[in-house]
Amino acid sequence: MTAATTASPALITSDRAILGGAAVLTVLAGVADYGHWGSVVAFIVSAAAVCLLASVVGRSVEQLGDRFGPGATGVLQSALGNLPELFICIFSLKAGLVDVVRAALVGSILANLLLVLGVAFVVGGLKHGTQQLGSERARTIVVLMLLSVSAMAIPSLAHWLHTPAGAHETTFSVIVSVLLLTLFALSLPFSLRRSSSDETGGDDAPAEAPRWPLWLAIGLLAGAGAAAAFVSDWFVHALQPAMDALSVNQTFAGLVVIAIAGNAIENVVGVQLAARNDSAYAFSVILNSPIQIALVLAPALVLISQLFGLASLTLVFSPMLVVVLLLSVVLAAFIAFDGESTWLEGASLVVLYAIVATAFWWG
Amino acid sequence: MTAATTASPALITSDRAILGGAAVLTVLAGVADYGHWGSVVAFIVSAAAVCLLASVVGRSVEQLGDRFGPGATGVLQSALGNLPELFICIFSLKAGLVDVVRAALVGSILANLLLVLGVAFVVGGLKHGTQQLGSERARTIVVLMLLSVSAMAIPSLAHWLHTPAGAHETTFSVIVSVLLLTLFALSLPFSLRRSSSDETGGDDAPAEAPRWPLWLAIGLLAGAGAAAAFVSDWFVHALQPAMDALSVNQTFAGLVVIAIAGNAIENVVGVQLAARNDSAYAFSVILNSPIQIALVLAPALVLISQLFGLASLTLVFSPMLVVVLLLSVVLAAFIAFDGESTWLEGASLVVLYAIVATAFWWG
Amino acid sequence: MTAATTASPALITSDRAILGGAAVLTVLAGVADYGHWGSVVAFIVSAAAVCLLASVVGRSVEQLGDRFGPGATGVLQSALGNLPELFICIFSLKAGLVDVVRAALVGSILANLLLVLGVAFVVGGLKHGTQQLGSERARTIVVLMLLSVSAMAIPSLAHWLHTPAGAHETTFSVIVSVLLLTLFALSLPFSLRRSSSDETGGDDAPAEAPRWPLWLAIGLLAGAGAAAAFVSDWFVHALQPAMDALSVNQTFAGLVVIAIAGNAIENVVGVQLAARNDSAYAFSVILNSPIQIALVLAPALVLISQLFGLASLTLVFSPMLVVVLLLSVVLAAFIAFDGESTWLEGASLVVLYAIVATAFWWG
Repeated sequence: MTAATTASPALITSDRAILGGAAVLTVLAGVADYGHWGSVVAFIVSAAAVCLLASVVGRSVEQLGDRFGPGATGVLQSALGNLPELFICIFSLKAGLVDVVRAALVGSILANLLLVLGVAFVVGGLKHGTQQLGSERARTIVVLMLLSVSAMAIPSLAHWLHTPAGAHETTFSVIVSVLLLTLFALSLPFSLRRSSSDETGGDDAPAEAPRWPLWLAIGLLAGAGAAAAFVSDWFVHALQPAMDALSVNQTFAGLVVIAIAGNAIENVVGVQLAARNDSAYAFSVILNSPIQIALVLAPALVLISQLFGLASLTLVFSPMLVVVLLLSVVLAAFIAFDGESTWLEGASLVVLYAIVATAFWWG
Repeated sequence: MTAATTASPALITSDRAILGGAAVLTVLAGVADYGHWGSVVAFIVSAAAVCLLASVVGRSVEQLGDRFGPGATGVLQSALGNLPELFICIFSLKAGLVDVVRAALVGSILANLLLVLGVAFVVGGLKHGTQQLGSERARTIVVLMLLSVSAMAIPSLAHWLHTPAGAHETTFSVIVSVLLLTLFALSLPFSLRRSSSDETGGDDAPAEAPRWPLWLAIGLLAGAGAAAAFVSDWFVHALQPAMDALSVNQTFAGLVVIAIAGNAIENVVGVQLAARNDSAYAFSVILNSPIQIALVLAPALVLISQLFGLASLTLVFSPMLVVVLLLSVVLAAFIAFDGESTWLEGASLVVLYAIVATAFWWG
Repeated sequence: MTAATTASPALITSDRAILGGAAVLTVLAGVADYGHWGSVVAFIVSAAAVCLLASVVGRSVEQLGDRFGPGATGVLQSALGNLPELFICIFSLKAGLVDVVRAALVGSILANLLLVLGVAFVVGGLKHGTQQLGSERARTIVVLMLLSVSAMAIPSLAHWLHTPAGAHETTFSVIVSVLLLTLFALSLPFSLRRSSSDETGGDDAPAEAPRWPLWLAIGLLAGAGAAAAFVSDWFVHALQPAMDALSVNQTFAGLVVIAIAGNAIENVVGVQLAARNDSAYAFSVILNSPIQIALVLAPALVLISQLFGLASLTLVFSPMLVVVLLLSVVLAAFIAFDGESTWLEGASLVVLYAIVATAFWWG
């Protein structure tokens, strides 16, 4: 609270570095696209630009949210946090890369529940020994995650196991998407209330005075959002030739490359929190991401693909993706109910992720 | 305890209303059947009659049980509580509607674990906030539920995944049914003991003096049982034409319509208990039903269908039914282990049920 | 500690009985093999010899381990405890009985998690009522078990559900095996540390002075190991004709017969511990076995089969085996998280095992 009395500059050093980096990389990505650079270089530059823009969007949302209370931040983050990934998926659909999008949706969940959780456990465990996961809150989140991911998985199960429903793939996916978005809308008051009680309950997230003026926060959000749209387009342009050059198949590109690049910043945050021994908060950040993908990103993409006549995306994932998805969710649930993490658990998760990724290497 | 000293009438008002309603609807259902009313009307009337007769059977069992101690009530309820559903399934088998019966068995479990549990959580959560599920007892029940439902699911898994066993479908189902009924017989002393310790431990279910004379309880049980047999027959008569008129397929009819109608009273009881903030008891009532279906109703129907030469029922359910069944059981288990419920969890369960039901709409 | 002052004989009576029995049965098994006795008799004699030699190996490892601290014992046991089963599997692969080995690997896990756990719960529950499973430690072990068994199951899932990976079955299995063995190597310091903290924490396993001189322990280990190799060879010789004579198929032979015979001693130990009301220790012994099979035995056999040109063993198990394996692991995890066991749970587990075994009777 005393910090608020000292004159805080609108932009601190780390903000400036990220903004500058994002601007430079955005320009570079544009040059790479129009200048027809080598596809692999163009792909790497645009991927890096996406990561930094994601970080700018995240910081702008945080600063905006501080004005409207912690609940609003959570809601804004749910709505806008996946913005770069949303753009990449939309442009991929426009380019007809449906398998890439499907794999990216499942891959984002897998990357969170296996890779990021695993690395967080290894880093946290090596530095701090056995860590506590704040089991009561983790359990509530994990039950919602189980329910929302299961709901998202039913159209695939119906498609592969119940032939008559398979014939109505698109209709069914649209119905499920509407229901999932409804559930998300219902969860908003819940999130608002939960976040505010967190605020009063725990002192570990002190209410900082917003550092940025309102116009700056809104301006940066709009700017970064627009830039993210352009960069995502260039990223998708470079994707296919780059993957061909590296002989990577569509599913692997979506499942591993996009899933990791599109969530890079959140992933780093999760691991950093674990390294700082803030394992309960790290765990809840990492578990929240699959809920957002199942309740917002996936159904929104299905509806957008139908409304705007893009390549038709349904919620029917390949059998292997569905089974691995359900398996990971159940494993994450048991880890949450255990309430403790060790680096060996983390190493096992990383190995499991490596094995799953290897399985999709052959595409 | 003091209530026992006041002269209690043999039948209180709510008893009379239900008895009267059951009698009127039973007669109406008979008239509808013999008078060839429209199939949808006949179906609705007989469904309502089944619900009320189920309630009369339930109350008679309760009054009878009070004379023999709480353990005996539990055992009687296990044995007779599913009587109306048993009759409906037998008459459906007689009419050759095997798919209806298979779907009804799985559907009863799904309706309990997703729909009823979900509505109970929503109602309870909106009225009382986060509710406790009495996790210690809930865990014991849920482990037994997992084991019994898994055992019931093995013949289906063997049929679809292990061809040689598929060729011995009937033999295998009969063996499994005998083992499941044996397990039920073994569980009787356990239930008897558990119920009596509950009685001494908890004061929330005070031992009321039986309100009905013995002859009345036995008479009503016999009468309602006999009436249930007739009404079930008429219900099944009306089922197929009514489903045709509403263009509902066999699986959906069993999975949703019969599953909900056949358990209507128990379902209402579960929700009422949650509304009264008696969430731990509500939860254990709702979780007990799948155990009874897996250990008693399903195996009894398999043996009856073989012994009496009805349409051959085996424990081989369609792949989608088995997967959804196992998924629901695992989700319910995690909810039980969480030990808390919120209305958002309830809403997610209801949405999940709606999605599953939709999948089977196309049959 | 005072026991150490009394002169302890190198071999106590029970040691002598087992050593004598092992020697006699080993000779008998050799005679049966060279003398062309009836295949069923030869099979039973060699199976009994394998059981007793397994016990001698176990005791030698224990005595050796006592010299190097409790951590070393755990590591030695992991490495050598499955020696007889390893020999049986190697000779089976040499004889081309790949299906037997696959079934034996899954069957050892199933036998532990369903049959042995079930019998331990029944015996312990009948003698001591509801038993506590020491849930904190049980949960840590069970999470590692879930992760390692899931990792082992991915090649099968990929083979059956993701065609492109199916074409690289052998390469993929070798990669996964190397990763699993790496994970085992990583877990060694963890096991060393965990065991020593157990030692200081709990007084239930007092540090006995080693009863055997070092030369005797090493000598017996070498002798029993060599004998186990010979007997395993004879056991596999007798296996196929004996199974033909009893009309048992390869999968059932591996899943039930070898799985039970190869783990007989450990199984008896688990049940004895439960009978002595040492249920937490019994549970952790029983849960540790699947981890060793997934992290050591299975991957070691895959690499051995490739390196020594035996019949090619991969980690691709039949669909039914994989599903039953994952189901059992999840059930065991819920039981561990419940933290209590009753004889009814045990009876359900035994019934479940009987149902699974029956499914594979038709092969």
